[in-house]
Amino acid sequence: VTIDWASSVDLLVDLGTGTGRRAALERALRAAIRDGRLRPDDRLPSTRALAHDLGLARGTVAEAYAQLAAEGYLRTRPGAPTRVAAWARSPGARAHPRPREAASTTAGRRPRPPERPRPPRHDLRVGLPDVGAFPRGAWLGALRRALASAPDAALNARDVGGRPELRTALAAYLGRTRGVLADPERIVICSGFTQGLALLCRTLGGTLAMEDPCLAELREVARDAGVRVARLEVDESGARPELPAGATAALLTPAHQFPLGGTLAPERRAAFVAWARASGGVVIEDDYDGEFRYDRQPAGALQGLDPEHVVYGGTASKTLAPGLRLGWLVLPDRLLGPVLDAKHVTGGTQTLDQLALAELLRSGAYDRQVRRMRQRYRRRRDLLLELLAGRRTHGIAAGQQLVVEVDSEARTLQRAAERDLALEPLGRFWHAPEGRPQGLVLGYAAPPEHDYRATLAALADVLS
Amino acid sequence: VTIDWASSVDLLVDLGTGTGRRAALERALRAAIRDGRLRPDDRLPSTRALAHDLGLARGTVAEAYAQLAAEGYLRTRPGAPTRVAAWARSPGARAHPRPREAASTTAGRRPRPPERPRPPRHDLRVGLPDVGAFPRGAWLGALRRALASAPDAALNARDVGGRPELRTALAAYLGRTRGVLADPERIVICSGFTQGLALLCRTLGGTLAMEDPCLAELREVARDAGVRVARLEVDESGARPELPAGATAALLTPAHQFPLGGTLAPERRAAFVAWARASGGVVIEDDYDGEFRYDRQPAGALQGLDPEHVVYGGTASKTLAPGLRLGWLVLPDRLLGPVLDAKHVTGGTQTLDQLALAELLRSGAYDRQVRRMRQRYRRRRDLLLELLAGRRTHGIAAGQQLVVEVDSEARTLQRAAERDLALEPLGRFWHAPEGRPQGLVLGYAAPPEHDYRATLAALADVLS
Repeated sequence: VTIDWASSVDLLVDLGTGTGRRAALERALRAAIRDGRLRPDDRLPSTRALAHDLGLARGTVAEAYAQLAAEGYLRTRPGAPTRVAAWARSPGARAHPRPREAASTTAGRRPRPPERPRPPRHDLRVGLPDVGAFPRGAWLGALRRALASAPDAALNARDVGGRPELRTALAAYLGRTRGVLADPERIVICSGFTQGLALLCRTLGGTLAMEDPCLAELREVARDAGVRVARLEVDESGARPELPAGATAALLTPAHQFPLGGTLAPERRAAFVAWARASGGVVIEDDYDGEFRYDRQPAGALQGLDPEHVVYGGTASKTLAPGLRLGWLVLPDRLLGPVLDAKHVTGGTQTLDQLALAELLRSGAYDRQVRRMRQRYRRRRDLLLELLAGRRTHGIAAGQQLVVEVDSEARTLQRAAERDLALEPLGRFWHAPEGRPQGLVLGYAAPPEHDYRATLAALADVLS
Repeated sequence: VTIDWASSVDLLVDLGTGTGRRAALERALRAAIRDGRLRPDDRLPSTRALAHDLGLARGTVAEAYAQLAAEGYLRTRPGAPTRVAAWARSPGARAHPRPREAASTTAGRRPRPPERPRPPRHDLRVGLPDVGAFPRGAWLGALRRALASAPDAALNARDVGGRPELRTALAAYLGRTRGVLADPERIVICSGFTQGLALLCRTLGGTLAMEDPCLAELREVARDAGVRVARLEVDESGARPELPAGATAALLTPAHQFPLGGTLAPERRAAFVAWARASGGVVIEDDYDGEFRYDRQPAGALQGLDPEHVVYGGTASKTLAPGLRLGWLVLPDRLLGPVLDAKHVTGGTQTLDQLALAELLRSGAYDRQVRRMRQRYRRRRDLLLELLAGRRTHGIAAGQQLVVEVDSEARTLQRAAERDLALEPLGRFWHAPEGRPQGLVLGYAAPPEHDYRATLAALADVLS
């Protein structure tokens, strides 16, 4: 992965000499790590190369690297390149730099907090629906109806599993559209699927087998919640049901593997369920975009096969907006109590938005929104595939992203940065990217509708 | 603490004999532990006494106790009474019964999930404002204005520290009303103060000194986030600045000690700040009800003394409603990056409610609501103190609860249960209740306005 050093350099220009420049370099590196420009395991330039680029003494760069290693930001090994540590992402997040260490480099200076990064001109990152299409009017109407009829008790936070209105509406919706066997009593509303996965990991403990590749952020969530992460190999038919030794749970994306885009083959569905039954393990079904299939009816949820061994997880982040922070789990009986207990400590979920979502589901406005967005995303995918004709792509006609292979992620991202186009390298999603195919995961839902063709034009430039 | 066995008995009536009744007893006990009727460290009746009450063989009860001990719900020691384990509340929440263990008692039976508890007729529990006074119209209006003007980016969840509109409005409000030195860049919006404390604990690690007594749930949150909990003695002048050895942070309620109701004396304020400066420690100021003082201007926030060593924490749960799940931290520079990193993994906070709260703050509607509720709670406190005339009470004229001493919490709670009045025993809030004064923490904000006098009448019966 190529690193954009321009911003680090920018932070240095107005600074003096000596320790001031070393401290400025340290601040620039810390900020780049915090705001994600430098990611865990990214390789840093050699001290010689960076010193040359920045016009610093090599010893100054070496001292800055050593300081940041002492603070836990960087990982150094003799004879190996310096890399960004798995900082803030390691089990239990105990690897955060301790305040006293961090303070030792900033005492008496009161540095400004890191700048929040400027949004890119064009955006094809994953995990973002077209929030410009959020049904603001329908949402406000649903909130008005909810506020007009909600009991006072809906405003306190005692019902940690979620409002019954929403659990009832979701049970009907998930049964009808996704084949989920969902009793409202078995549903737990969460602050996004992220919280749901964290609750499950804390409840289950043990080793979670995760698809390789998979959404990188979920690996962080799982490790942070105290489970060990193991690998599940993935091909065009989804995850292979070859559970690593010691696995006690498996996180799958059966409808649309993230990010490679396969759908889980029927015999593999059966094999995962059989494994769970035989071993007492748990399959977690992350149905993050199951509503969006463009060529035929989507496959029903895996959970329908065996609700006692499969946890179903869903979210409003892809259908409405991630800013709502609303997700849900449908749980086997035996996990309901423990997950509710974990949620009691971890924190409840805002109630008025739950009531509004229940209104949208009951009124049919949610279905209409999904249908409308399905048409939009299908058109976008068709346009994108036209542009990519002749290239090697992966993924069924579904969801909000597809994978295209490239020769070099690093060179492609470099060119994309010049065009101010934000792209996601496939490398970010592998458990370990070495030796894996290189590619881009193109999130075609992210751009605003009016900018979609311009975004594709920028992508065409980058790939040309 | 007395235990209400009626509900356990109820669950048994329609069941048969033999293993069916033992399983039913186990389910009833699990449900009672999960929904809080049985609390950590509660003492269970002897097997002999319970067997007699329920008409079971003593061996059946002993087997049920043994099963629940194996599952982690109960703690047994030879020669000592059986108690509820510190289950789901111990460090790291790793003490949850593992699913496989839990499953062994339910295999093939598919028990119904535990019943959600029926709300009591009268409620004087703490932590609940009068949600009947939630300004539904103003909130809807604020949401309408927010939805009309919010940029699309407000609907995604990229700004993990919170929406700038809310951080800006809060900085002005907290400076004006609480003397908080709050730069919007230093504010992190959280899903309630609960999430904020969890983030701090994960960032700081080490040992957190907590007031004794304090809000019991916050001890669970802190332990769950991986810190050790130590004790800070409390008297009528708030917490005593005698930090236990090894403490790296202290959680205080300076404006209105929870639950004893003192305000932190000026020399103690200085002493805590001096400790933080000298040791590199952190003071966390939980300003949970600082808006509500009835006899004079509230003391300004401790944070104003030293914003580099004191974290300020606040919440909309007491001024508006806990169901909003909105809280905030004002952080020293050195903690901002680490707390944002922890929040990135733990989860963002819903954005539309943030925009609505910003609107309420800017328009002055928030201030009006606080003033209105200040008058209401002051009247309620006066009425309650009339009722308690001649009894030993604790607490300044502030907040939403006060403490009254009683001879026996157990007997008082028993009588309250007969009147269907929910009360909180002071014993629940001590780190260890043995040998401590017994009392009630009366949350006079909880009842609906129309029911307040009836609630007081019920309390008068209970105390007569």
